[in-house]
Amino acid sequence: MRYKLTLSYDGSCFMGFQIQNDERTVELEIKNALKVMTSKDIKIYPSGRTDRYVHALGQVIHFDLEEDIPPSRFKRAINNILPNDIHVNLVEIVDESFHARFSAKSKEYRYYIDLGEENPFDSRYVSYINNLDIGKMDEAIKLFIGTHDFRGFASAQIDERKDTVKTVFEAKINRLSDKKLEFIFIGTGFLKYQIRRMMGALVEVGRGKKDSSFISLVLEKKDPKISHKVLDGHGLYLYKVNY
Amino acid sequence: MRYKLTLSYDGSCFMGFQIQNDERTVELEIKNALKVMTSKDIKIYPSGRTDRYVHALGQVIHFDLEEDIPPSRFKRAINNILPNDIHVNLVEIVDESFHARFSAKSKEYRYYIDLGEENPFDSRYVSYINNLDIGKMDEAIKLFIGTHDFRGFASAQIDERKDTVKTVFEAKINRLSDKKLEFIFIGTGFLKYQIRRMMGALVEVGRGKKDSSFISLVLEKKDPKISHKVLDGHGLYLYKVNY
Repeated sequence: MRYKLTLSYDGSCFMGFQIQNDERTVELEIKNALKVMTSKDIKIYPSGRTDRYVHALGQVIHFDLEEDIPPSRFKRAINNILPNDIHVNLVEIVDESFHARFSAKSKEYRYYIDLGEENPFDSRYVSYINNLDIGKMDEAIKLFIGTHDFRGFASAQIDERKDTVKTVFEAKINRLSDKKLEFIFIGTGFLKYQIRRMMGALVEVGRGKKDSSFISLVLEKKDPKISHKVLDGHGLYLYKVNY
Repeated sequence: MRYKLTLSYDGSCFMGFQIQNDERTVELEIKNALKVMTSKDIKIYPSGRTDRYVHALGQVIHFDLEEDIPPSRFKRAINNILPNDIHVNLVEIVDESFHARFSAKSKEYRYYIDLGEENPFDSRYVSYINNLDIGKMDEAIKLFIGTHDFRGFASAQIDERKDTVKTVFEAKINRLSDKKLEFIFIGTGFLKYQIRRMMGALVEVGRGKKDSSFISLVLEKKDPKISHKVLDGHGLYLYKVNY
């Protein structure tokens, strides 16, 4: 039986999704919970990894089990075992052609900037940045929309052979309040650090340190070493994976 | 110069206020920050300790420094050094008769219960409890108002000689939404675990496991060993100290 799980996690206390040694990671906690349920080591496949401190509201994973457990019972059981900063929202039994990563048609990420004073309760859920010209950022963010080679916005360690052409369907800024900005990015997929580096470039534009033509330049040069700001993971949320 | 600081902290990642060995505590972080600023070990006095995981929106501390630093500059400097789950909201230079603990006239604590489904982003900021008869709790919470010997609601390890007579000025429940309850307690002072044990008793009443007369019984018997529920620290906030 192939199981598809949709889950939320607060990334604050995780060293990212993927297992690495004994660090506390989301994958490790899920594998531990599945081991309690089945007494087996189950291999799990996420739609993609999330970095250290990055949150998820709609991460999707799949895995195969011999057991046929009704979804509602499965959900209750795994949520009882998981720590309370991970929560399974939906359990579905899917066809074995389904793959959390390869079947994904698009992904939505959101990033939150708080323009106000620092608040210790929000410090792991937003980035505090002020003095931004939002009008300039509204113009600049549109430059990401469309099919581009995003290599210039990827991690500097990216493999040369990797396909870095991606399509961004939507990229926009919502003013949630006087003090809070929400950035929405929907696209076929995003490279490691891509959203945090696109956000970094937008902040440079908003602060007047770069012109919006800097974004076109990075897209054109395809060189991730052109220096630009990387925003931290705390403000970033994997919001939804569409299949 | 005597400095009075009003601060907020997210208790999620602290083992309480008070220094204990090498654990991460609020006191340790503040002393470290003051050491960076002054190169000295400064003794600090809080209005009271908070337990593991308990949050603060208006904790108050005082300490003495030889240096005369303007409050606005002091605030900027210490906030730059402190980790981002502690934030100093206000710095004041006060008369040396001021004492954070002994000058306090009353304290306000708040506790939050979420009646809905668990959400990993809120799990460190509320207690999830459902099936509560709020009408019964509304009646029961009034029994705490007034001057009582609260020994029965203190930690079982409480010193026999300690004065446990306290006055509660206000105790009430606000329905913030269909799913969220706010409990407000204002009083001259609260014993270790007192709010979490009063909350535990209220939840027993709300669930129909105890009658509200149980609260009167615990107040009358003054025995902290009469078994009752203790709610966890995640839902508790030191909201304000009044001088």
